[in-house]
This record gives sequence, structure tokens and C-alpha cells, in this order.
Amino acid sequence: MRITDVRIHKIAIADPPLRSSYGLHQPYALRTILELQSEDGIVGLAETYGGEAPAAALEALKPRLIGAHALKVTGALMDLVQGSGSGDARSQTMLVPGENPLDANPRTYAAVETACLDLVGKSLGVPLCDLLGTRVRDAVPFSAYPFYKHAGGGGEGDDAREDEYGEALSPEGLVSQVRQMIARYGFKDIKFKAGVLDPEVEIETVRQLRREFQMPVRMDPNSAWTVETSMNVGRTLREELGADSGGYLEDPTASIDGMAAVRTGLLSEGIDVPLASNVAVTCFADLPEAFPKDAVQIVLCDHHYWGGMRLVQQLAKICQTWGIGLSMHSNSHLGISMMAMAQVAAATPHLTYACDTHYPWSQLKDEVVAGGRVPIVDGCVRIPERGGLGVELDHDQVARGRERYAKCPYRKRDDEAEMRKHVDPTWRRILPRW
Amino acid sequence: MRITDVRIHKIAIADPPLRSSYGLHQPYALRTILELQSEDGIVGLAETYGGEAPAAALEALKPRLIGAHALKVTGALMDLVQGSGSGDARSQTMLVPGENPLDANPRTYAAVETACLDLVGKSLGVPLCDLLGTRVRDAVPFSAYPFYKHAGGGGEGDDAREDEYGEALSPEGLVSQVRQMIARYGFKDIKFKAGVLDPEVEIETVRQLRREFQMPVRMDPNSAWTVETSMNVGRTLREELGADSGGYLEDPTASIDGMAAVRTGLLSEGIDVPLASNVAVTCFADLPEAFPKDAVQIVLCDHHYWGGMRLVQQLAKICQTWGIGLSMHSNSHLGISMMAMAQVAAATPHLTYACDTHYPWSQLKDEVVAGGRVPIVDGCVRIPERGGLGVELDHDQVARGRERYAKCPYRKRDDEAEMRKHVDPTWRRILPRW
Repeated sequence: MRITDVRIHKIAIADPPLRSSYGLHQPYALRTILELQSEDGIVGLAETYGGEAPAAALEALKPRLIGAHALKVTGALMDLVQGSGSGDARSQTMLVPGENPLDANPRTYAAVETACLDLVGKSLGVPLCDLLGTRVRDAVPFSAYPFYKHAGGGGEGDDAREDEYGEALSPEGLVSQVRQMIARYGFKDIKFKAGVLDPEVEIETVRQLRREFQMPVRMDPNSAWTVETSMNVGRTLREELGADSGGYLEDPTASIDGMAAVRTGLLSEGIDVPLASNVAVTCFADLPEAFPKDAVQIVLCDHHYWGGMRLVQQLAKICQTWGIGLSMHSNSHLGISMMAMAQVAAATPHLTYACDTHYPWSQLKDEVVAGGRVPIVDGCVRIPERGGLGVELDHDQVARGRERYAKCPYRKRDDEAEMRKHVDPTWRRILPRW
Repeated sequence: MRITDVRIHKIAIADPPLRSSYGLHQPYALRTILELQSEDGIVGLAETYGGEAPAAALEALKPRLIGAHALKVTGALMDLVQGSGSGDARSQTMLVPGENPLDANPRTYAAVETACLDLVGKSLGVPLCDLLGTRVRDAVPFSAYPFYKHAGGGGEGDDAREDEYGEALSPEGLVSQVRQMIARYGFKDIKFKAGVLDPEVEIETVRQLRREFQMPVRMDPNSAWTVETSMNVGRTLREELGADSGGYLEDPTASIDGMAAVRTGLLSEGIDVPLASNVAVTCFADLPEAFPKDAVQIVLCDHHYWGGMRLVQQLAKICQTWGIGLSMHSNSHLGISMMAMAQVAAATPHLTYACDTHYPWSQLKDEVVAGGRVPIVDGCVRIPERGGLGVELDHDQVARGRERYAKCPYRKRDDEAEMRKHVDPTWRRILPRW
């Protein structure tokens, strides 16, 4: 299991024009595929953030990877995640996940760890979650993840994709989008990306979702609101998002103090709408500040930027110990990340919500996993009997992803620029907006 | 790596008449050796608490172990450690480690996890710490662990052992004991078991230790003192045990609130003697209470009762995140536990003190590790290049340990009864004593 070759692929995948408080998704989402090949010819895979910087960081690590044992190199590289454990202010309030330079090293480490675990698992014929030693479920539940969106399926020119879901800029549009997703994937939970339209419209959207689907709804405006607006929404949707419903309100407002003000304000009115976060709380150093302030009742983990799978398991134990819920964050991604998310979730006992996933927003046409897309059945991804992540690479598809990357002009995610280009030339991200 | 045979050995090892606030060690310490054999004939080992109850708990688990894959069974058994994560009051104030029924399941799980990891590591030829994925050191520092003791080397009748260290019931006796230990093992730290003699005598002992050896000294009276006495000792030994010295004061008084009173009291006088604990703080549920009260600045981990190696790593991450130190607790043990402690310590980045070990109190005559005792050189145990724990079983020695167990009358640890038998027929453990 000694690593003899390291291959790094920068790819672009068509991404629909999804809206959030960050702005508008570009026509392409960028991803990086990492291959670590052993002397036996077995290849461990990982998928991580895309564009120039993540690939360059992995490239720079090559000398420490070549010749190293896949079971030992994750220890040898621990320096990449140790510093991140304390003291850094790494809020994602203004920076989208994957673009914050302060967690660049944990992101790089996470990709290497995933590929190493995949390599070891494949070498032994053992699923990755069993290497982590604590598999507690064989199928991992994911949520429908509807977005307000403009017409279009993503991609440009010859790559322009079919618009599977159509425009959705109203409550009815969003309900229709979710109906499609549930019909196709069988989701049992809904995570609704808000922070885009007037809060009154988004409140109505949540109500329609609850009425139509009668399943837990989580609402995530990515810090778009003031404390006052957040409290208004919480007050109005106390039943639809309340603890008893299985829902939550995610990052209604910016900062740990802002979140704490919303929570304590609502509680003082007897309203128990739990607050989740992957914006105000994004790293271990945030936890000792956030917990005593009651700023967050659910933390969103994500092995891609929390420093890997083992650190996600450690985060989960922290949350369990402090009585905090754990959910999972997602970015635009393909099947390798899908399986990595499922594997770590399968080995994380304290996972108290269905995970987020952008997977329905990607398409077979862009999938790099051999044999096509990872199946989501009844809202769940099953852990395959195969070793490691359970997926192999389709090299032709990777080549096409590389080509698309070479041809497209995007080198990092910039939702604000895209908003200015297509929606409003004067648009700026203003927080709070409402 | 499917488990086809489970063997459980109850053994007894000669143990010298060591004193602590719990009382007096019996002439034999009891241990359990667990063997998990795979279909390939490879055997994974663990060593845990002894006597009837731990062996019975492992015995009861046999049906869940036989036929299970060594990499999967630790996940399948997670129910044994999940309940322990919250809510249980598991203080070791009155019960010695290993005798608290409330962490019986985590202790059982830990033995199985260790043996499984050993089995996997041996199957792959990979050291156990590399299976844990985060090896950050190749040699693990341990401390000299002097005790006040009566004359005698432990064991009874034909088993009576040579008294390597002699009686030590005075400061001078203790210094002489440490001198012997350092000469033989090269320790660079001293963990001093106090709570036995009058605090004035123990203060003088610490002073002589510091003067003689000029190395960090930790003092552990196992809750023997009142808050007032604890503060007096902290005040008097502010330099000898202060944060700058690398020392600490461990469990001077009982309970989280008692510890908090000592800490805040000393801090209010400008005295920074950090407090460590494995009595007031013994499980994950204790942490959210202890940290905000500043009751503990260092937690002592121990994979044997914290639910295994992975949970120790998670405890370490918690401590790192909250700015709390991490040290390691020890009980009377042989070479299998020694290597297990070294392996988990090697894979625990945030280990801020040399580990405790009772290993010098055991002898070659009782060692069950093939080839004899695990070497401690310059105070450190090196991680061997071999797979798993790095040690194999000497079956003749195990047989002798079983014989000794069968012959001796002890079936559980009871330091109080032993005190009454040999020192004072009216002795009772009184907390606080001073």
C-alpha cells in the first residue's frame, strides 16, 4: 500500500443557475479529483473543491505522498490539521465554503485522507466505513435540497445541459421542484436554501413545503437576515421549523453572537426553533465559544473542510457530549464525494439529521464514477459491499471534465460576479439584506 | 480477518504492597487477557481489568464475536459505548478504576477494540497506531510512578516476589525508590502517588523529589483532602507543582465542585497550579460540567475505561479544542496493556504530558509477552516495526498466570479490605481524610 503515483485532475461540471444569499452559481462548478496509486496498481480516490488553488495545494504535497504508505501518511501529515484546531477565526460569513484560505490545509488533508482510506479499503476489500471502525448504519439518509433558480440546466455552448427542474422563483416553483426530486430519489426530508427572496415569500415557501410533503423542513438563508428578521421568521414558523417538527433554521443571521441573540430571544418567548450552522460555526475553535452562548443547537459537519473523516467523527463526539445535534453540509459535487459523505456518515453514530447533498443538481453526463451515478433510493445511499469508497473512476469522463475545465473561464467559485453578469450589474452581497 | 475463536484468560500477577488513599494493593493484581483468533490463525490480543466480572462480560459477548470480521465488529458493538456518552454519573471517588459497574460496557468494548486492531494490524503487518491513522510520535514518554509502600514485593507463598524497591514510607524512602526507577528506566517525569501520609510529609516528599531530580513532578492524593487542605498544598507547592514546572496536582479533593473550588480559590491568590483528574472526571458526560467550572485543566485518559482507543482520540480532540491538557492514567498491568497504551498515545496528537504506568511494579516472572518485558528506554516505549500491538503471547506464562489466579483467593480488587488485613483492622476509607 505504498503510494507510487499521484494524479490530480481539475474538472468542471455543468451547474444550474442556483441562487443563494452568496449570489448565483456559475454555469460550471469546479472540482478536483485525486488519485493515489499504490505499487500494486490499486487506486484510492477523493473528490474535493475545484479550481487552481486546491489542485496546487495537492500538487505541492506530492513529495510527501510519493513513497509513503497509505496507512501511515495520514499520520505524517497531521501538521496540516493541528493548527486549525484552535484560535483561527474561520467564519464562512463572506467566503463560500472552499474559498477560505484559513482552512486550506484541512481541505487538502481531507482529500488525502479520503484517497488513502479508499486505497486501503480497496486493497483489503473492506468498505471505508469499516476501516473507520464504527459503522452504525448501512444506508445513509440524505435530504432533498431545493434552491430558487433561474431557467437553465448549467453548462455553456455545447455543454449546455437540459434544464431538468426549470425555473423556480416562487413558492409554487419550489414545491414543484421538490416534488420532482422526491419522485426521483425518495427523499424524506427537505433542506430549503433561502436568503434569496423577500422573507415573506420564503415563509410562504416553507408553509407550502410543509403542507405539501408533511416531512421535516430545514430553512437556510445563509446569514441573510438581521437578528430581528430572524426572530420574526422563527416566531412565524415556530411550528413548521420547531424542534418537534424535526426541522431547524440554519444560519439565519451572521456571527456567533447574532445566532445567540436569535436563539435566546426566541427561547424567551417560549419558541424552540433549533438553530443550525455551517457559517457562524465552521471549525473546532468556534465550539467553545458557540456552545455556552447557545448560539447553535446543530452543527453541520463536512469532511471536505473540517479536516477529514476522522475529524468529523471527533466533531460528532463533541456534539454528542454537549447535547448538540449533527447534520452534514454539502457543496456541488459528483459521485466520489457522494460516497465519501455516505461512508463517513455510516461510521458516525451521532448523526441526528439526514445529510445535505447537491447531488441531484449534477448529471450523469458529468459523472466521473464508473458505471454512472451513485443510486439514491428511498432518500438513502447504501454502503456497497465493495472495498473503500465503493466506486471506481471512469477515465473518459475525467478526461471530458478536464477538457471542460480547460475550455471554461472559471478558476474559482464567485457567486457574486455571476449575479452581476446575469441578474443585476450592480448586485453586491449585503449582509444582512433583510 | 473473520474471528473464529475467542479465548479469555483470568490471570493473577504479584503486586507489591503499594499504598494510596484507596488503601493497600493486594498481593496479586488481577488481569484478563483476551485472544481473538482469525480464520487465518492470526491472534489479536488485549489486556484489561481482572477478576470474575470483566471475564464474564467478555464471555457473554462471544456470540457477537464468533464469525464477525475484526474490522466490522467494533462498529456492530457500538451500542456498548453509546450510552456512556451522556448522563451517567460515573465518578471514581469511592470505586477504584475497573470496579465501577457503570462503565463496565466501555471497558468490555475497549478490550475487544484493542484485540481487533491488533488482529488487523498483525494481518497487515502494520503497527496499530498506523491503523488509527494519526501516528505523530514513534516513542511514547512515560513517567516514574513512585508509591509509598510497605516492605515486600508482592505474591504469596512460593510466588512471593523479590522486593526490588523495599519499604518507602518517608520522603527519603520515596526519593530512593525514584532513584532506582530512573536508573533502570530513564524516566524524565515523576508522578507521585500521595494521599497516604500526613500532607506535611507529602509536601516534603515533593520538595525532595524536585530538589533531587529537577524534573516535572505530579502529585496525586486521590481525593484525600478537603478543599482547604488542597489549597494549602497548592499554595505551599506553587513552584514545585506550578504550570511553569510542568507538574500538576491531581484530584486533590473529591467532586467537580470541590476541584472547581480549589482551582478558583488558588487562581484568586494568583497561584497557577493546574489540576488534573481521573476521579472527579471519568467520562464524556463529566466534561460539559467540569470545563465551564474550571474544575480540571488536565484530563487523564485511559483507553481501558474510556471505551477504547478511538474514544481516547476523541477525548483528546475535545481537550485540545477546549484548551485542556491530556495525560494518561494507568492501573497495575503487564506488557500487552503497556503496548496498547503506547500505541494509542503514539496516535494521539494532543497528548501534553508523559503517560502514567505501573509497569515498573510488575516483573519479568509474571510477564505474558513473548520474549519478556516491553523495554522502557530513556523513559520511552518505542513503537515496534511489527504489526498490531507489536507483541505476541507467551502461552506458558499465561498458563502460570491462570494457575496463580486459581490458587489465590482474590476475585476483585479491594484495597480497603487489604488495609484492614495488614495495616489496621479498623481502617476505612474516609474522604476527605485531611
